[in-house]
Amino acid sequence: MYAVIFTSQHSKNTDGYAEMDLRLEELVKTMPGFLGVNSCRNEQGFGITISYWKSLEDIKHWKTNPAHQQAQQLGKEKWYQHYKIKICKIEREYEFN
Amino acid sequence: MYAVIFTSQHSKNTDGYAEMDLRLEELVKTMPGFLGVNSCRNEQGFGITISYWKSLEDIKHWKTNPAHQQAQQLGKEKWYQHYKIKICKIEREYEFN
Repeated sequence: MYAVIFTSQHSKNTDGYAEMDLRLEELVKTMPGFLGVNSCRNEQGFGITISYWKSLEDIKHWKTNPAHQQAQQLGKEKWYQHYKIKICKIEREYEFN
Repeated sequence: MYAVIFTSQHSKNTDGYAEMDLRLEELVKTMPGFLGVNSCRNEQGFGITISYWKSLEDIKHWKTNPAHQQAQQLGKEKWYQHYKIKICKIEREYEFN
């Protein structure tokens, strides 16, 4: 299993962001190899989104999806001051319930 | 480089949490192999903390730190409804500034 860690700082211009976020949230669920997502953003506009995938190929496929690419473009032009993406291989997992 | 992804849902009882969080935030900076941390929590009490480390041994060393173990215990008893921990190896990284 793989994780894509996306950390980002919103700019002041977030026009259209919420709609795109919702649209991509629905779209990503239909992608092959998509296993889930965790997301949060604080009041200062700093956010973390982690998506989980079966393989590196699935991650690449999602990266090149046309709607996702449009979002990436708008993200750079408008919505984000900066962001970082890390591609990770999950080695171990445990939980408390 | 390794990442520890900690996703958690706060319970209603967060007495003492902020103090412990601050204390550990200072302490973790002094740990060998610690490279940084990203963190956010939303208004519903869902949070993500990602810490970055040089090696799996450094992660294990931090896990067994006495103050950290006390925090883990209090976390289970009081502060968290549930949490998940994932240990990951970072394969690739890129950024937009």
